[in-house]
Amino acid sequence: MFREYGLDDVNMASYSVLLSYPDGPNMVRLVDAESGLVLAESSPKQPPLYAPEESRDDVPYSFNAYAAPGNVSGRVVYANYGRQEDFNYLVANGIDIAGKIVIARYGMIFRANIVNYAEALGAAGVLLYTDPADFALDGQDAVYPSTVMMPPSGTQQGTVKLTDGDPLTPFYPSIESAFHIPEEEAAIPKIPVQPLSYEDAYFVLNSLGGPEVPVAWRGALNITYRVGPTQLARYVNMEVHTHNVPAVIHDVIAVIRGAEEPDRYVILGNHRDAWIFGAIDPSSGTAVMVELSRVLMRMRNETGWRPRRSVVFCSWAAEEYGLVGSVEYTEQFRTQLHSRAVAYLNMDLALLGNYSLKASAAPLLYEVVWEAAKLVANPDATEAAAGRTTVYDTWLARKPDPVYSTRPQVELLGSGSDYKGFLYNLGIPSLDICYNHDESVPGWYPLYHSLYETFAVVDELYDQGFLFQAALARVWGLVAVSLSDPQLLPLSLQEYALFISDVQQQILQDFGQLMTDNNRTFDHFLDAGRSFSARVDQFTQELLFVDLDDDLAVRRVNDQQMLVERSFLDPQGLPGRADFNHVVLAPSASDAYSGTAITGLTDALHAIADAGPDDDIAALWRTLDEHLAAVTSIIYSSAMSLTLQLW
Amino acid sequence: MFREYGLDDVNMASYSVLLSYPDGPNMVRLVDAESGLVLAESSPKQPPLYAPEESRDDVPYSFNAYAAPGNVSGRVVYANYGRQEDFNYLVANGIDIAGKIVIARYGMIFRANIVNYAEALGAAGVLLYTDPADFALDGQDAVYPSTVMMPPSGTQQGTVKLTDGDPLTPFYPSIESAFHIPEEEAAIPKIPVQPLSYEDAYFVLNSLGGPEVPVAWRGALNITYRVGPTQLARYVNMEVHTHNVPAVIHDVIAVIRGAEEPDRYVILGNHRDAWIFGAIDPSSGTAVMVELSRVLMRMRNETGWRPRRSVVFCSWAAEEYGLVGSVEYTEQFRTQLHSRAVAYLNMDLALLGNYSLKASAAPLLYEVVWEAAKLVANPDATEAAAGRTTVYDTWLARKPDPVYSTRPQVELLGSGSDYKGFLYNLGIPSLDICYNHDESVPGWYPLYHSLYETFAVVDELYDQGFLFQAALARVWGLVAVSLSDPQLLPLSLQEYALFISDVQQQILQDFGQLMTDNNRTFDHFLDAGRSFSARVDQFTQELLFVDLDDDLAVRRVNDQQMLVERSFLDPQGLPGRADFNHVVLAPSASDAYSGTAITGLTDALHAIADAGPDDDIAALWRTLDEHLAAVTSIIYSSAMSLTLQLW
Repeated sequence: MFREYGLDDVNMASYSVLLSYPDGPNMVRLVDAESGLVLAESSPKQPPLYAPEESRDDVPYSFNAYAAPGNVSGRVVYANYGRQEDFNYLVANGIDIAGKIVIARYGMIFRANIVNYAEALGAAGVLLYTDPADFALDGQDAVYPSTVMMPPSGTQQGTVKLTDGDPLTPFYPSIESAFHIPEEEAAIPKIPVQPLSYEDAYFVLNSLGGPEVPVAWRGALNITYRVGPTQLARYVNMEVHTHNVPAVIHDVIAVIRGAEEPDRYVILGNHRDAWIFGAIDPSSGTAVMVELSRVLMRMRNETGWRPRRSVVFCSWAAEEYGLVGSVEYTEQFRTQLHSRAVAYLNMDLALLGNYSLKASAAPLLYEVVWEAAKLVANPDATEAAAGRTTVYDTWLARKPDPVYSTRPQVELLGSGSDYKGFLYNLGIPSLDICYNHDESVPGWYPLYHSLYETFAVVDELYDQGFLFQAALARVWGLVAVSLSDPQLLPLSLQEYALFISDVQQQILQDFGQLMTDNNRTFDHFLDAGRSFSARVDQFTQELLFVDLDDDLAVRRVNDQQMLVERSFLDPQGLPGRADFNHVVLAPSASDAYSGTAITGLTDALHAIADAGPDDDIAALWRTLDEHLAAVTSIIYSSAMSLTLQLW
Repeated sequence: MFREYGLDDVNMASYSVLLSYPDGPNMVRLVDAESGLVLAESSPKQPPLYAPEESRDDVPYSFNAYAAPGNVSGRVVYANYGRQEDFNYLVANGIDIAGKIVIARYGMIFRANIVNYAEALGAAGVLLYTDPADFALDGQDAVYPSTVMMPPSGTQQGTVKLTDGDPLTPFYPSIESAFHIPEEEAAIPKIPVQPLSYEDAYFVLNSLGGPEVPVAWRGALNITYRVGPTQLARYVNMEVHTHNVPAVIHDVIAVIRGAEEPDRYVILGNHRDAWIFGAIDPSSGTAVMVELSRVLMRMRNETGWRPRRSVVFCSWAAEEYGLVGSVEYTEQFRTQLHSRAVAYLNMDLALLGNYSLKASAAPLLYEVVWEAAKLVANPDATEAAAGRTTVYDTWLARKPDPVYSTRPQVELLGSGSDYKGFLYNLGIPSLDICYNHDESVPGWYPLYHSLYETFAVVDELYDQGFLFQAALARVWGLVAVSLSDPQLLPLSLQEYALFISDVQQQILQDFGQLMTDNNRTFDHFLDAGRSFSARVDQFTQELLFVDLDDDLAVRRVNDQQMLVERSFLDPQGLPGRADFNHVVLAPSASDAYSGTAITGLTDALHAIADAGPDDDIAALWRTLDEHLAAVTSIIYSSAMSLTLQLW
């Protein structure tokens, strides 16, 4: 399609990576221990319920990517959401995990972490299921296809690999000459893992003995939830055929060449692979990206518009396997992207609701996304009728910033989509946007990664007339154009300084006493933030006096702005996380603190604050002291990006 | 002086680092084992011999920096040049090192490696001495002050720290907020080390018993060289007061601001600290740098000349302690230098002879140094009279490239001076130049790091009338101007392609059979080199058509050229050497193979080829396979620096 629309340069970047597929039906069975009779077994595929395309013969067997194949039997233990604290509860209550099959419900943390915790405790296998309490909020009768809620047969699939990119080529691109580490060294499970619908989870959970669970652990199935293990007369058998296979994947890269600065790239990206149909994830985003490329080319052909900088579209492969396509790409083009990319604008799914715009971004992109949203008509007719005529108006009304309430909230990026390599390893300011549901109602979008993410869901339930996706395309496109066209890059430096200052104040508030009690201070750290802020103020003044007729002067101040995000990278990586280099914006290593930034530091501080008697407290302080010094020196140096001063 | 000459911006970058000084006389004594009588002892300072300034009271006690303080006694073993192979010989011949004092002669490898080998074998102390065979080549009567040869009392001092930069802040700048690792974790000796003159080494070596040394181990002292240990009736006592002290050091940074691209830096650097007087190392270079700054400012003031790009002068501190000042600086300004520096032009000492120019450089700088040398009149009157009228002519005549004999040889850089951080960590093309002695005569300059590196040596023996230093200033200055002034950067891309191709062919020749025999090939590696070469050819053609009136087009192709050296960096570091990132130009980890490039690879290949029965051959192949893949992918990607193509 990019070629059909006439983009200047359309090609593929291809990689040989390790993927994972089932080569037979993955079965979970409840077995009578004495007779060996199978009392119940799971459905190997999700049955079609509504849209004609669900009935295709090539719908794969349900599976979790990178689960180990195997045939294991054992008694089952229920681990609630599979968080560290959930496993801690089991261990504290004398529930032995070793040799057991763990069943945990989706909904709180990344599924690979659930498996990792279970594996570390010696589990023989893991079952991941969708509890109606989390995904069928209006009861098990008000579900797809009549609503967007998960039906009993819906099975959330997904990767259970811990790290990003091809599991066999960490840090390097999976080109033909790549070195592949042995599979046993890869960050993938060594035990079978299988997803279950709540229809099938029922027979597993209903067989559990042992004490009742705490109230917070109860789901909405019509059973008494127990921690397990399975009653003595029963056991569960997992027959998992999921296995790893080498495969070649293709990122598609399409360029609208910049007229004046073709060596500056504004990159838009979206992944192309899906768990079965993926009408929401990612195809709603793909529709937006393809449409935007068409519209920009039409602008160019009909109005003579050309972007000053190059606009690049990337259609990523194998994102669902753990950002494989985009991470390999950023590994291969590391030096060039680090030097030339102005911003990376991601869209994974375009919408998981139609309540409000949701933007997650590096602070440098706050203003461009606010300004773009102000220019786009509100696709919500009710809202528009109420006087909120733009996307921005509803966004501000429904999702104001919790601190600065006169502006809409822009959230922190996590690590769950293709901006990961761009922002966290290469220091390229990144954005991710979509239309979101009302977050005051719990839950992600319920049909996520199931068979039932069909065109009908988008067309009939989420976005009749595709108004919200069109509005999103406009916002996203305006952000791209506002970065590609003006002489001066409109990066919001002041926002970055404010952001860092706010995060620092929060850290001071949360941990200042802990530091004082241990004869340490945040003084230098805070001073570095002030130094960055002062430099930003000065540079912002200097920008007013740049001679716009002097191409080299313009380029110079733009290069300085581009360098800011880069300057927050630590080549040594974060403590214990060599694959994250950004000391300010990296997501937390544990989901529990995902609302914070400068997370190498806050994670280290939390580790001290939460330390138990078995922890090596001196080692925790050593990590904190080292990383605090690293972050401090990096923030000091980042200020130097905005000056030509050499001392 | 920079301020006096009116440079635009003169400031200091200061660091709190760990240095090392003796706080008392370091003594080495030969003791009678029975009576405890001291039979002989070393001189704590080198006595004045000639120039008046040698008689100063504040000449320090002789020492090796970062030696551990201590008072140890033991019998002595002689380890020749202290190379791995020398220690292997001792071990193979049943000479126990543990608990002994090792004496080794300077002259083949970096002294810190000698100490490291001895320490690993359990030595109690190390004595490093200057044998007249290596440093008094014309006999012990033809020495300083009548010649440049080392007199009997001359003592070569120097650091025995293994790594570069402040030993307590690896990877991060030693600013006030820095984290300091505990001293016991630093890469510094845990045993006493002391340098000796050959006058003093005599009584140590003459006391040795045991078998005679192999012929190649014999020095020129009038004794029978034996491996030791010391005769039973004697022992040696070392009383070492050298100890580590915190100190603040100051790099001086001075800028002549570029008129059109002030954010592009051509950096000239020289260190300021010396082992006592240091008239050669570094003051001959310092004289050149200060003079060059004066001349360029005079050009600016009198002719209106301004460099297009900024010219930066750096006067480094604490180089003699292991590149401390420059490494801390490159750690602090990492992001800015990586983004903005066009080249780093080093001058350590300006001359250690007057036979020929000696240039060591990244291939990108070959042409600028050849062209500069062609423009400078020959300071050697005899050579000029013979028709070799330029510096280039004598350089070509006396030091032709061993392969391409129509041009002078430019050598590989090592790791012994301040270009280390710039080239090997930041990917900035670097140059080091000086006037050299005739290398067909063995030996470094004999007075190196002794008290006798005095003004008189330079003024009366090496460079009467300072003609050679003036010529060198002209060459160095012309290189700087040729990089700072033209619109298009004159980096020699073709030379880089040729260099890589030649190195690859050498590797193929040396190790092709080894690879074939082990079912491996260099195919991808060689293909990557061809790909780089083809891209260079294409880019070189494109350069001919750049519109010189288009400032952004000029900047674009210059940025692409600058990116080439950067693209050879591996953020993961070389195998086992996290502080070296350049996969093509890093110096060898062992001095034995210092003539090669792509040394992460050649070191790994040599390790396999030289493996003994105790080596883990599978692990060695694993290292090779991983690094070969890394280098291959990096060379492939480097070609992409010269295109805007994104796939």
